Formats: sequence, C-alpha cells, structure tokens
Amino acid sequence: MSIGQSVPRVDAYEKVTGRAKYTGDLVERDALIGRVLHASIAHGLVRGIDSTEAEQIPGVVQIITCFDVPDISFPTAGHPWSTDPSHQDPADRKLLNRRVRLYGDDIAVVVAEDEVAAAQALRAIKVDYETYPILLSPEAAMQEGAPLIHENCPRNILKHTAMEDGDFEAATGERGLLYFEETYETQPVQHCHIEPVISFAYMENGRIVVVSSTQIPHIVRRIVAQALGLPWGKVRIIKPFVGGGFGNKQDALYEPLNAYLSLRLGGRLVKLELSREEIFFATRVRHGMQIRLSAYVRPNGRIVARQYRAYSNQGAYGSHGHSIAAKGTNVFRQLYQDEKARKLDIFTVYTNTATAGAMRGYGTPQAVFAIESQMEDIAYTLNLDPIEFRFMNLMPQGFRDPFSKNVNYFDSFHQCVEQGKAYIHWEEKRQAYQGQTGPVRRGVGMALFWYNTAVWPISIEVSSCRMVLNQDGSLQVQLGETEIGQGADTIFAQMTSETLGVLLEQVHVISTQDTDITPFGTGAYGSRQSYVGGMAIQKTAHLLKDKILDLAASYTGMQTSALDIHAGIIVLRSLHDKPLMSLGELATEVLYSPVHAEHLTAETTLQAKSNAYSFGCAFAEVEVDIPLGKVRLVDMINVHDCGRLLNPQLAQAQVHGGMSMAIGYGLSEQLLYDPKTGRLLNGTFLDYKLATSMDHPHLATAFVENYEPTGAYGSKALGEPPAVPGAPAIRNAVLHATGVGIPCIPLTPHVLVPAFKQAGLI
Amino acid sequence: MSIGQSVPRVDAYEKVTGRAKYTGDLVERDALIGRVLHASIAHGLVRGIDSTEAEQIPGVVQIITCFDVPDISFPTAGHPWSTDPSHQDPADRKLLNRRVRLYGDDIAVVVAEDEVAAAQALRAIKVDYETYPILLSPEAAMQEGAPLIHENCPRNILKHTAMEDGDFEAATGERGLLYFEETYETQPVQHCHIEPVISFAYMENGRIVVVSSTQIPHIVRRIVAQALGLPWGKVRIIKPFVGGGFGNKQDALYEPLNAYLSLRLGGRLVKLELSREEIFFATRVRHGMQIRLSAYVRPNGRIVARQYRAYSNQGAYGSHGHSIAAKGTNVFRQLYQDEKARKLDIFTVYTNTATAGAMRGYGTPQAVFAIESQMEDIAYTLNLDPIEFRFMNLMPQGFRDPFSKNVNYFDSFHQCVEQGKAYIHWEEKRQAYQGQTGPVRRGVGMALFWYNTAVWPISIEVSSCRMVLNQDGSLQVQLGETEIGQGADTIFAQMTSETLGVLLEQVHVISTQDTDITPFGTGAYGSRQSYVGGMAIQKTAHLLKDKILDLAASYTGMQTSALDIHAGIIVLRSLHDKPLMSLGELATEVLYSPVHAEHLTAETTLQAKSNAYSFGCAFAEVEVDIPLGKVRLVDMINVHDCGRLLNPQLAQAQVHGGMSMAIGYGLSEQLLYDPKTGRLLNGTFLDYKLATSMDHPHLATAFVENYEPTGAYGSKALGEPPAVPGAPAIRNAVLHATGVGIPCIPLTPHVLVPAFKQAGLI
Repeated sequence: MSIGQSVPRVDAYEKVTGRAKYTGDLVERDALIGRVLHASIAHGLVRGIDSTEAEQIPGVVQIITCFDVPDISFPTAGHPWSTDPSHQDPADRKLLNRRVRLYGDDIAVVVAEDEVAAAQALRAIKVDYETYPILLSPEAAMQEGAPLIHENCPRNILKHTAMEDGDFEAATGERGLLYFEETYETQPVQHCHIEPVISFAYMENGRIVVVSSTQIPHIVRRIVAQALGLPWGKVRIIKPFVGGGFGNKQDALYEPLNAYLSLRLGGRLVKLELSREEIFFATRVRHGMQIRLSAYVRPNGRIVARQYRAYSNQGAYGSHGHSIAAKGTNVFRQLYQDEKARKLDIFTVYTNTATAGAMRGYGTPQAVFAIESQMEDIAYTLNLDPIEFRFMNLMPQGFRDPFSKNVNYFDSFHQCVEQGKAYIHWEEKRQAYQGQTGPVRRGVGMALFWYNTAVWPISIEVSSCRMVLNQDGSLQVQLGETEIGQGADTIFAQMTSETLGVLLEQVHVISTQDTDITPFGTGAYGSRQSYVGGMAIQKTAHLLKDKILDLAASYTGMQTSALDIHAGIIVLRSLHDKPLMSLGELATEVLYSPVHAEHLTAETTLQAKSNAYSFGCAFAEVEVDIPLGKVRLVDMINVHDCGRLLNPQLAQAQVHGGMSMAIGYGLSEQLLYDPKTGRLLNGTFLDYKLATSMDHPHLATAFVENYEPTGAYGSKALGEPPAVPGAPAIRNAVLHATGVGIPCIPLTPHVLVPAFKQAGLI
Repeated sequence: MSIGQSVPRVDAYEKVTGRAKYTGDLVERDALIGRVLHASIAHGLVRGIDSTEAEQIPGVVQIITCFDVPDISFPTAGHPWSTDPSHQDPADRKLLNRRVRLYGDDIAVVVAEDEVAAAQALRAIKVDYETYPILLSPEAAMQEGAPLIHENCPRNILKHTAMEDGDFEAATGERGLLYFEETYETQPVQHCHIEPVISFAYMENGRIVVVSSTQIPHIVRRIVAQALGLPWGKVRIIKPFVGGGFGNKQDALYEPLNAYLSLRLGGRLVKLELSREEIFFATRVRHGMQIRLSAYVRPNGRIVARQYRAYSNQGAYGSHGHSIAAKGTNVFRQLYQDEKARKLDIFTVYTNTATAGAMRGYGTPQAVFAIESQMEDIAYTLNLDPIEFRFMNLMPQGFRDPFSKNVNYFDSFHQCVEQGKAYIHWEEKRQAYQGQTGPVRRGVGMALFWYNTAVWPISIEVSSCRMVLNQDGSLQVQLGETEIGQGADTIFAQMTSETLGVLLEQVHVISTQDTDITPFGTGAYGSRQSYVGGMAIQKTAHLLKDKILDLAASYTGMQTSALDIHAGIIVLRSLHDKPLMSLGELATEVLYSPVHAEHLTAETTLQAKSNAYSFGCAFAEVEVDIPLGKVRLVDMINVHDCGRLLNPQLAQAQVHGGMSMAIGYGLSEQLLYDPKTGRLLNGTFLDYKLATSMDHPHLATAFVENYEPTGAYGSKALGEPPAVPGAPAIRNAVLHATGVGIPCIPLTPHVLVPAFKQAGLI
C-alpha cells in the first residue's frame, strides 16, 4: 500500500519535538558515574597503579584497575556468532588492559558518585609504565624485530591472505603490455555520530541489564556474556533510540566494561558515557590502508592482469579485523574483469593507533578509492575516455559471482552513468576544461562501485519478526533489526502495511529492542536490514494474514481463498472486493469469543541465503586553486541502483548522508598521530575537519530502479553504498582539472601544494 | 522439577533490597503533577467552577473541569470485554463528573509543575453546587421519592435479581418446621494495599502510554481507549512491580483521567498519584451488605428451605456492580443443600458513598458471614453440634453444579474440618468453655466456605503465553497475568521448569506487562492466575519442548519420541536418561546454523472452559471481655483445600494475608460516614482500624492436597479464599463464649456492649 511512497518517518514527530528518548535520557539521576583512565603512553606495560590518593577523594566509590579484571580475552566485532572457531572474530582484549597497545588504552576505571569526583580521581591515579617502541604504521609494525603488540601475531600481522585467479605469471608475460603501478593510500577517519558512545548497566534478579546506544543489541548480549564469563541468558541488552552509529556501534564498545562495573558493585546502576575526545581515540576508526596496485594493460585499454597488495592498519585491537580488508578485495576481483589473471596479497596489521573497526562501506571506500584512482590514471596516461575505458573492462551484465551467487541482472552501470553524465554535463565539461591555464582550474571526475547487500555467505543471515494484532485492527511489529537514525522503522512499517494489507498508521513498530523479548536479529550493518528484515516481515505478515483469513472465513462462511485484506478491511475478492468486516472487528470477536478465544500473533525466523549487488557511481565537479592547494567541490551527484525505492525521500536522505561522509573522506578528514608519543593530535571537533553542510555543494541524487528479484520488496543495499564512490570521483576531478593524480586522501593543501610543485604547476 | 517445593520467590532479592521498581520509582522527576479536585458535597450538581484565581498561581499548567471532558460514559470494572452488550459492565461515569454522587467525587483536575502549586490551586478553585438529599444506605436510596443518583435506575437499583429453586411456598408449608430469620449486616471496608493508586501517562508516536500500578493491564488498555473514545491500539499500558491490589486495582481507577490529561497537554508526562486519604474515598471499597436470611428447619436439623434477601451497597458508581452480590448467592445456593427449595432476591443499590468494587473474596465474605452466622445461630438454638448440623446439610461429595460444571470430587470439607478441630482442640474447648461465668470468657467457633477458581462460564477465561529460549538454555516467559505481590511470577517459573524440564534458575519470568508486546491475559483476579495461567504455561511449554526435541532429534539422529529434557539437558530416555546435549548447546547450534537458523520461541493462547471448587474452613478461639465489649483473638487456623500446593511457603503466606484481612473485617475495620454531609469520617490510617500484626495471634495454616483434575498442575483457587471464613469463625466463637450471636461486623465495643446489655450480661 505504501511501498515506494515517501511517507513521513514514523518517528519524525518524536525526534523533531525532542521527545524521543535516547540512552542518556533514560539514566536515573542518581546513577554512579564510571570514567575510564586511559594510558598516557602508546605502547608498553603497566607496572603498577597507585590509586591510594584517588580513593580518598570524596565521592569516589571504587577504583578498578587492569590488575583486577578477569583474565578473559574477548572479541568485540558485531558479527553473528559462529560455532566454528575458524569463523570467530579475534578475541584479543580484556576489560582493562595491562599491556598498553595505544595511547589511550583502557587501564583503570573510576566509579564515583558524580562526574567531578570521577574526574578528580582520574587525575590523582599514578601509573608506573614500562615503555616499548611505538609502531604507528603497518610498515613499522611489520619490520623485523619490531616488538609484538599481540604476542601470538608474528610481525604484528593479524592476518594475511594471498590469492591468485588465473596464471598471473603467464598472463603478465604477454608481449606489448603496458605496466602501471602506484601505491594508493587512505587515511583513518572517525564515524562522528552525533550521539556519544553511552550505556548504563544494573542488575535485576541476578542478571545484568545494559541499556546501550548500539546497532546490535543481540550481538552485544553475547559479547558481554563472553567478556564476563557469564551464561548468555544472564545478560539483557536494551536499545533505545540511537543517534547514529555508522558502524562504530557495530562493535561491543564499553558495554562489557559497564556491565562488569555494575556486577562489581553488587548490581548498582552505573553510567559509562564517553566524551567526544574519548570517542575519537578509544572507540573505532576506519582502517587506513596502503594499497599497491599493478596493472598490465594492452595499448587499446584492455586489462590483462592486475595485482592488489594491501596493508590495512588495524590499530591496537582486532575488532572486525581482516574481514574489512577482505571485503575490499571482492571489489577488486569483481568490479573490473581482468582478461587473464589477478593476484592479491592483503595484510591486516596491528599498530599502536586507534582500533579500526566497521565503518559505513566496510573496506570498500578504501578499495574503490585505489581502484577507481588507478583506472583514471591509466585512462589519463593512455589518453582514453575514462568512462569508455571502464566499460571496456567492467563486470558485464549477466555476471554471476560463484561465491556469493550474486548476479548482475541489469545494465545498471550504464543506466547509472548515463544519469550522472547528464546531470554533470560530462561531455561538455570534459571538453570545456581541456587546456586550462591560470591558478584556478575546473575539472569533472567520476567513480563507479558495487556493494553487497547483507553478509551471506560470509556469515549467517537471520532475522526474526513477531506481530501482535490489536483489537482495533492495528498491530505491533517487533524485529531484532534496529532503527539507528536511518529510517528502518518507517520502512518496516511500510513493508508490513504492504503485505498485510493494512493502513500505514495501523502499524506500530516497536523501536526499542530488548534482548529478553525482541525476536532475534543481528542488527544494523552490512546494508542488510531492509533486505533481510524485509524478508522476515513478509514471511511473518503472510503467517498472520493466513491466520486472519482462516478465522474470517469461519466467521463469514466464505472460503479463505476468496478473502483478502485491503486497507484494514477483510474483503471478498470475487465480489469486487466487497467489504465484509474490519480487521478490528474480527480481532475483537476472536479475542473475546466464548467458543474460541485467541490472541492473534505470528512469529517466525527468516534465514536468508542470498545477497544482492547494489550498483552506482558518483560524479563530481571541482575547482582547484592551485597556489593555495585548495579544492572546492562545485557540484556532485550520486546515482544508485538500490533496486526498488522503498521510500524515495528516505533513500535520498541516506544518499545525502553518505555523500557528506565521502566529501569529508576525500577532502578534509584524517586522524593524525604524534610520531613521538603516538598520541592522537586532532581528536576533537575543533581539530578534526569533519565535512559539514558549509563544505557541501548542492548534493544531487538520482536512482535507477531495477527490481531486485532476490529481495522481498525488490530493494537492495543503500545504507553504505552512498559513502563509497565520492572520494575517488573528487580525486579524479582534480586530476582532470590539473593533470595531477594524487595517490592519497584527503586532498589537503599539505598534499596538493607539494604535488603541484612537483608537477611544475607552482 | 520444583512444583510442590518452597523455592524462594524469584523477586525476593529485588524486593528485599529495595531494588524492585514500582510505578512511583519510574516517574521522571520533571513530570507534571495532576491532582484531582474532589467535591465537597455528597450529592448534587456542579453549577459552575471558577478557576480564575487558581490559574494565576505560578506553576499551574492547566485546570480541567467537569465541563471540559468528553461526554463519554465508560465502565471501569476489570472484566474481560464481551461483545454481547448484555454482558458488559455498567458504563456510568465520566472522566470528571458534573453530577456529584459522593462526597469526594472527581469534578476537576489541576495539572501543575509541582505538588505545592497543585495543592494551592486546588484550594483556590471555587465551586458552586446545587445540593440534593444524601442517600447513604440502600434502604434510604430505595425509598419511594428518593432522588435518583443515576437517572436510568429507578429507586436507585442498579440491578435486581430474583430466583427460586424448587417450590418455595409448598416447601415452607410443611408442618412442624422451625422458622429462623435474621438480618446479617456487613460493613464497607477498604483494601489498604501498601502501594498507592498511582500512574503516569505520556504520548509516544501519537499514542497514549500509561504506566500504572494495576492488576489488569490489558483490561485497562481497553477501558482507557473506551473512556477517551480512541481506537484500542492507540493505548499502551505498562505494569511495573505492584505493591498490592486486593481487587482495588482490578478496576480502571485513574488511568483514563491520567491518559486524558497527557492527551490534553499534547502528550506531556503527567503523574497522577493518590494520597492515602483519596484512596479511601475515591477508589473502591468492599460492598457493605444487608442480608436477610430465613430458614425452615426440621427439629432434627435438616434444612428444608431458605430465603436470601440481600441489599448490596454499590456506592456512587457501577464498577463491578451486581456481579458481587450475585457471586454471594452462589455460595448460598451451593454450600448448604436445602432439601426442597430456596428463594433469593438480591438488589444492588446506588448510594452516595464510596464506590464499591472488587475485593478479595468478591462478595463471598459477606455471604459466608451471613450464612455461617445463621448456621451457627440455628445450631445454637436447636442445641445441635454446629459442625454436625453443618454436615447434615452440606454440599455432598460428588455434587456437581450444573452451571459451572464444578464437581466436589473429594471429601474436602471433612478433611479440612478434621485438621481445624485437631489444631484448636475443638472437642475439649467446646466442653471446657460451657457454663462460663465472670466478665472474661472464652469460646471457639468455626466457619466453612467454598470458592470458585477463575470466572468461566460467567465470562471468558483466556491466557496467552510466550517463551523465548536463550543460547545458554535459559528462557524468558511472558504472560499477561500479573505479579502483584502474591508470588505469581515464582509459581509461573516453577510451572515452566516443571513442564519444560529445565532448572528453576533457567526460567526468567518477565514481570513487567506491556500491552504492546505481552501476550494477552486478563490479569490478577478471580483466583484465576495459577489455574488458567498455569494451563497457558503448560500448553506453551509443550509446544516449545516439541520444537526442541524435534530439532534435537535431527541433530542427534535419534527419534523425537526417544528424547526428553531433564534439568536443562536433552537426554535419551531409553538409555537411562543418557545426556546427549544441553539445551544451551542445541539453542546455540540452531540459532547460528548456516543450514537452518532459528530463534526458538513458542506462543499460544489457552482458553479455559473449566472452573474448580476450592474448599476450606477457619477455626478461631476468642477471649471476650464482656464489660469492655472487647474481643481478643487468642488463636486461629485456616485450613484450605486448594489442590496440589505449588509452593507451600507461598501458599502459607497467601493464607496469612487473607487471615489478617479477615481479622480486620471481623473485629475492627469499617468505613464510617457523617450522616449529615456524607463525608467519610475515618479515611486515614490513624482512624481506620486496619488489623496489624499487633492484633493477630499466631496465624496457623494447614492444607488438604486433593489434586484438582481440571487444573494443569493440580492446583485451584487460593488467592481469595483465605479472606473468606475468618470473620464468621470469630463471630461464632463470641457466640460460644457469651451466648450472644451478633448479626453484624465488625465486633467493636459499640456493637458488643449494647448487645451484652440486652442479653443481661452487663
């Protein structure tokens, strides 16, 4: 009934009026305050902690150090659990760490009656450290003789994968091939969600309850239990409204520690809220990557073979680890089709920097930046049209990935590119901006990408749903999948309305997940929720509809097959949808029937064994002030094929957000470390140059709607893709404007001025 | 596994440590405060309200009067809805009433930022009344020409029922019959639950949420919607821990008004908490009744015919109305079997006193007081042994009530009486206390009763349950049935453990009901929850167990029929219960299975179409100080056949509480009205003589365990019965001690001294 329409968000009123309750709004005012003591060295060992003085400070309740916590190493990545140990995430951190692995590592925690006492106590704790050499880059960390950040990882390599498709040596032996090689580098950045990392914990009936701003309540339950050595059923996680996550909250961050603090204090209520500064260094960041790409190309532009060597900076702890670098390789292997062979070597390497984890795009922004920069560089060198060159080598329509079984059913790339070209006036501007001189020059650039929908077959895809019919014909919908600001609840309501045949306002989506009662779902990640959650909704709505129509048949004397539900009314199909009774009338009759009383609900689990390709591109126009080394983004469009649009306005909003993230990624954002101390230098909103609306041109969006046949409602990934193609499109526009292909982001004056100098432009 | 054991309450720790959250603990501190303006006349009309001055008081947000509220009359009784209008409860009150029907009627409400402003505003509101004559008793209200309290009820009779079994006139024409007639009278009393009547309301996504201390969340949802004229699905009720209800909270009390206040204020959070004084006059009380009993008895003690004429004081509004008086008649018609005929006339009559509603025993304490007093009086007059006389006329073993289909399967009355006699040393003391003289005399007395379990076939009996299995083999249990202090959650956990085969600590009962998600159940009343809720638990646990064993069979290669669950372990029955895998292992394998992933839950609705007799008696010993008119209760025992004991210690606690209530009912508690103004004179804990532990002797309890064949776990009503037989047992002991049979309660000096004087004892 409402799929495809831009219905207003179901939570719009609550959020606009400020009535929506976030985790911080729910903490009782007399909660104890937990504050973490972060290490002031980047690498070493805590020899001892003297908290005598701190303990004397009035209001301090307890100080717990890395010497007190259980000797349990646990994983933090927000992945479904696997009973196969080889598919489990690295379990390499403790609640507090004696072995310091980054500047700001968690070494102790103060619990106090108020923030002031907690802050005073933090300052009064004295720590005696033993220090080790600091390793800030994969290069440094992999050097022979470098100290090991985690003892079981030689050369600090968390994981290394090597792959070869075809016979690389034979392929590259072909005569007349042109060789291209460049190292592309992407920086670590932070998610910068508005709501901080915050949770509070207490005990109830001998069980731990953690209320947390998380994307993944059911997974956090498992991890808290693992970290504390408790049976999983002893932990309950509640997820209120969430003010953004972008993947940072797809990790168990401080929930395990928070739970432990309450446990240690006999179940008292303890709040653990991170400051913005702590979020920068102590949560997760996007993996910085060095990607060395080689390509063997015929003079006509056909790629024969390529090599991909990536070094992914994992930072101090494992988190999502190697799966991020691995995801990038999928793009490399599938976006362009080398005629003969491919070779890959990827390393995920521990360093003494902030832990890298999941972030919107999950390894593909890095890979796409490298791949699309290289494609542009090759086309530029060979003087080929960059778009034609791409299509010459692109994944063809009909391509099927043997692993994921994804099929490129449509001509999405062409359709997307046509829209992007038209919007940006590609042909005219490519022409017009040729041979510019002077200090300020313009250019247009573009980049392509594809993205997976959901995570099957890498890990399981499962989503459960429960629906409860009310006596007025409205219903509640419960899902483990989470609204984190993206509009999931609205989409879920539209889907329910569509399949059940009720009005949108008859659908009440329960936004709060509570692992005690909410059907299991893994949560917001992998651009999976509309796809997998949608299937769960469709299955459950069918179950409920069948129940309803069977009962309606028995009440009306009609055949079930003759009935349907339209706009909340049970109708007789064969009589031009003649209304028989409302859903409310039926529900009331059934619930209060002296003959057969029934509370009408349906619940089921959906296991998805499919995945789908999302496609798209970005086109950007820039103006480069060469002497200043300054890039101004003049115009930009993202074009997406995310299947059928469920809610065009919400889809557009998703794309806008992703584009903003891509702009910051390409032009200004980066985490900078002091090489001497390993301290993060710019971990505040003053110093970290997050892209804001002031930095954006008009953000244009367009869509190609190829109905996805594996999805319940024809849609596929749109959560993450918008963040992927923007940075290389900007970078390629700069190349078009200046003739200089910068191999790294962000494109700051620090990078551009030397490059322009070297190119003789200044 | 644990049924029949006195396992500790599942909520013991939370309640003992003060950690359990009651409604008042959950209100945010910046809630607006609602306070009701109560009428200062007992009968009349509000001509006008001047709130000009009150509105000027700083902090006053809004004043709403009886002139502002919707013109909707709604019912308040906590009964399942019936789609048959003739089975619906009287809908006779509005959110605020212009027509004043009791001293303290709700005529306006102040919403303010704090309690002080609200209290000041209440005092500043000026009301102009038109006054009518005050009708404080059914007698006065039924008089010809009395003003009508509700216009559609001639002579203020809410309902009148007349019944005749057999040919009464013919039966009473038998020669040689002795005639007995007396009017027995019981007083209105209040429930005196510890937790006040309290709720708070706010809006969320255009829907009203009310958090309330109620016994019946799902019913309150319906009533709030009816009172506000909203679709039922627009209302959500949440029930936290409850500190006692005893039937008072089996009405929608102030939830509809509270919801309306928030609605009027655009959804702002408003708290409505009643003071103890308000609870006394403005909530519900036990119906005072005048019961005129006539009996035609052969000199040998065989009763030939009896007549029962009851006048039940309904107070100002309908609430549970006539069903209370009607329930009393069931006892009259079944406890003793008149040989030939019976005649009944019962009137429920509106008066200008506090509204009478449900209270533990629901009309039977009144009826049993009258019946058991009369039986004692007849035996005393005929010089028959009172117990032998009772058994001569008692409901025989094998008796089957044709309406409820209840069967008296066992010899419960004899078994109970034997235990009571033995404990109190009945024979010796009946003998020993003969012919006492002097001012202080002792006596022993007793009374019998039976009580229904659940409410079928008067109204529907339905209970739904959902179970969610965790990955450690523990599970959550959700029921619409409510823990209100009685220990329901503990019993539910025991039942789940028993049927599913898991350890008690593996069962997590969700104590908070939330009508959005909690399976439908009607709540705590009618001594129904262990009986009907137990059946729902058994049915759901079987469903879940079947699912588990089917999956276990597929994992182990065994036949489902060969498997069972013992203490959380799946075992092979044929191999001496050889352990195969734990429930936790199975749940984890199943949830994370790449082949077939499933979140294991079960949910179902149970409709009960049975009911069961509970039986029992009380024996009391008293010492009467005749000149002082003072009765000291020396010893007391209640003996109950409530079927199989689910948890002996909890059962004993239930009986202790009921006995305490019966002692206050018999000896000290009563609501007194000023005959001139109609104002309640003693509505405070200073003036109202609630029985406390200081007034109790050792409270002895004993049980007869006749396994109830219609119940899932062999149990039947124990919630209400303990409050029933105490008062007549005490009253009959006073008769034994003094020879004076008092026809009313409470037995205060005000009653006893004149009676003893009249009998020539003083």
